[in-house]
Amino acid sequence: MPSQFDPPSGTRDFLAADVERREHALSVIRSVFNRYGFEPLQTPAFERLDVLLGKYGDDGDKLVFKILRRGEHEASGEADLALRYDMTVPLARVAAAYGSQLPVPYKRYAIGPVWRADRPGRDRYREFVQCDLDTLGSASVMADAEALCAQYDALAELGLPGFRIQLNSRHVLAGLLEAFGVPADIGPQVLISLDKLDKNAPAEVVGELVGQRELDAATAGELVTMLTAPDAAHRLRVALKQTDTGTAGLDEVDAVLALVAGQIPAERIAFTPRMVRGLSYYTGPIWEVVAPGVASAVGSGGRYDHLIAALGGPDVPGTGSSIGVERILPLLPDAGTADRGRLDVAVTVLEPDLTVQAFGFAASARAAALRSSVYLGSSGKLARQLKWASDSGARWCLIYGERERQAGVVTVRDMTSGQQTEVPVGELGAYLAGLPGSRG
Amino acid sequence: MPSQFDPPSGTRDFLAADVERREHALSVIRSVFNRYGFEPLQTPAFERLDVLLGKYGDDGDKLVFKILRRGEHEASGEADLALRYDMTVPLARVAAAYGSQLPVPYKRYAIGPVWRADRPGRDRYREFVQCDLDTLGSASVMADAEALCAQYDALAELGLPGFRIQLNSRHVLAGLLEAFGVPADIGPQVLISLDKLDKNAPAEVVGELVGQRELDAATAGELVTMLTAPDAAHRLRVALKQTDTGTAGLDEVDAVLALVAGQIPAERIAFTPRMVRGLSYYTGPIWEVVAPGVASAVGSGGRYDHLIAALGGPDVPGTGSSIGVERILPLLPDAGTADRGRLDVAVTVLEPDLTVQAFGFAASARAAALRSSVYLGSSGKLARQLKWASDSGARWCLIYGERERQAGVVTVRDMTSGQQTEVPVGELGAYLAGLPGSRG
Repeated sequence: MPSQFDPPSGTRDFLAADVERREHALSVIRSVFNRYGFEPLQTPAFERLDVLLGKYGDDGDKLVFKILRRGEHEASGEADLALRYDMTVPLARVAAAYGSQLPVPYKRYAIGPVWRADRPGRDRYREFVQCDLDTLGSASVMADAEALCAQYDALAELGLPGFRIQLNSRHVLAGLLEAFGVPADIGPQVLISLDKLDKNAPAEVVGELVGQRELDAATAGELVTMLTAPDAAHRLRVALKQTDTGTAGLDEVDAVLALVAGQIPAERIAFTPRMVRGLSYYTGPIWEVVAPGVASAVGSGGRYDHLIAALGGPDVPGTGSSIGVERILPLLPDAGTADRGRLDVAVTVLEPDLTVQAFGFAASARAAALRSSVYLGSSGKLARQLKWASDSGARWCLIYGERERQAGVVTVRDMTSGQQTEVPVGELGAYLAGLPGSRG
Repeated sequence: MPSQFDPPSGTRDFLAADVERREHALSVIRSVFNRYGFEPLQTPAFERLDVLLGKYGDDGDKLVFKILRRGEHEASGEADLALRYDMTVPLARVAAAYGSQLPVPYKRYAIGPVWRADRPGRDRYREFVQCDLDTLGSASVMADAEALCAQYDALAELGLPGFRIQLNSRHVLAGLLEAFGVPADIGPQVLISLDKLDKNAPAEVVGELVGQRELDAATAGELVTMLTAPDAAHRLRVALKQTDTGTAGLDEVDAVLALVAGQIPAERIAFTPRMVRGLSYYTGPIWEVVAPGVASAVGSGGRYDHLIAALGGPDVPGTGSSIGVERILPLLPDAGTADRGRLDVAVTVLEPDLTVQAFGFAASARAAALRSSVYLGSSGKLARQLKWASDSGARWCLIYGERERQAGVVTVRDMTSGQQTEVPVGELGAYLAGLPGSRG
């Protein structure tokens, strides 16, 4: 049962270890995106309601968090603002607002939370981070390949185990339908059924094509047989070359594969003709990233040459990719972030009249770039304070009591070995600067 | 007149240079807070409405952005969630929710946007970043001094020019009223008038004390005379020592000053008896940071021992500080972030059949930790592409045309000097790794 102190349904509080883990992953992604010459963009958490509504279809509109009007208008019960639902509609607005101030092409990334009033569930949150990378204003297949490589590099640097990229093209899909004489009106539905070949048995998919999509049985059988054959890619190439659209699609896929060949190992990327991507706005190369242990894609991308105009922006070609960071976070190796929350140097405070000295010792440790804090509790007992030092994960503990004051030393205790060293007060700064992990 | 493409009133879009500048400042602050052993906390952008309402007074409640209920409940016009108004109410909720999982004391920082439906104006936004640092569960004056020093270090590392800290204590203020026999019921109002002594003439403040606060003229005159005398601090100390509360307040201020003396230069901090801080929830030391050229405080802090309980959390002592990052950003030195958006290496694409090579050269540059991109436009002209390289701020441009292909070299052009060097293709990686700014 949720407690009154839980965060709202579908949202999460991130305590220290979670924040470190998440921020580490985001900083790796940010750094890779930067290296490709993409620049950051930050837009507000909310947009005017009319900017958002009507952009995501009826189902999407229902998931938009709407913000009530304020002051005298609050009683109307109407909304005038809404939390952003993705990073693409704000991008379209920014492209329209700042057109001439933006570089051409405009290569930008946006990393931040979006909000959707979805039914919360496993791996489905109402507040989650999106990592988007987009290039507006270039029709070049190099822009597609760049979006793909940047995404690959980021996932590889994060150490995501065993991920693979499935590459296809909308032209390949259109050529496939054309080559097999699939009626145009059922084309999109046929593609959605074919996309299930990665999970469902071929016979099941044939059944769906005939029963639900009303494709004739012969065509359905041929399509599925070809796509599931061991030499599917070859047989498909032969079929696609019968049509202009199919040929263009193959050329597009081959151009992307040639560009990325030096950067993405061959076993990590494959032409995957049945891969559809649900979204209809794609117009060129499309791709998905899959990883063992995750049912849905952990990344995706593609070219969408008319989307920005459809979203209210200028009519510019666009391409981009997105990393499903919430899905990959549980799969990433630890990357040493577990230690980040720990203190380096814990400083005891054993006598009321020695607080100023203790406070100064912590400052000396920080001056050596060590993470340090004095004991802030009320106990004057050494054992209690050593327990605090241990609980804080401190690597060293500085002990300064009446005995040390008289001797003019600080006792430095190695919390791992328990070994203690007496260091003259005047030499403490230099001693701390020589400890491993310090800047000294 | 606002355009339909502007962000919502009171909010801002941050393009690359602004993001770099802001993120640089926040990363400095984060790093200092970490060094003091504070740990990060991230809570959702919104809270349940009942968690937020009633915590900020009637005026505050009016400024809360409320989120409409969803689905079948939307038509009710009612809200059930609201955007966070500050970082303190979420902290109180987290302290209540995770009490036993949190370290004691719980030293946390929270850096992120908050939202207030204030009337937008100069330096007043509806979405702005707060940088809060708090220690819950310690009654020690060292916790106050730590909050103060961490704030000082952050502002000093940011290079904020000429800032000063005004230190006082609620006990000093209470002792002051007691020593001068100010009736308890007008005490808070009298303090608010005295706080104006930094901006208004003494006679004006006396006028306000007598006219509006109904303080007798003799007391008003004595109070203002003492607080504005050249030896105000000394005369105040004498007056305060007449009462127990005043004596406790002086001890508190002196304890903080003694603790921070090794870390905050004397000219940067001063006991400032007339400094009040508007907020009534403070219970111990209080401070404000002022900077030339900014009318309001750029930072503040203090002890608030019963606030967390009042906000619905456990009854633990608390102290903390906050940096007004939106106010200081315009005052900060450039810090070299201006170069950050620039490309290091721009790569020309002069022939359609040389795209794979060009794409690979950009990858080589990135492998040497240089920020690199290929030309993504449609012109095949060198002059046009050099202009793009220049517009991108590139330090070097790689030129690879038919001539270079035949000679097996890449022309590396220094974009500052215009000097060109021919580098054999096989040696390009090593050459790039030797350029200044690369990781090689």
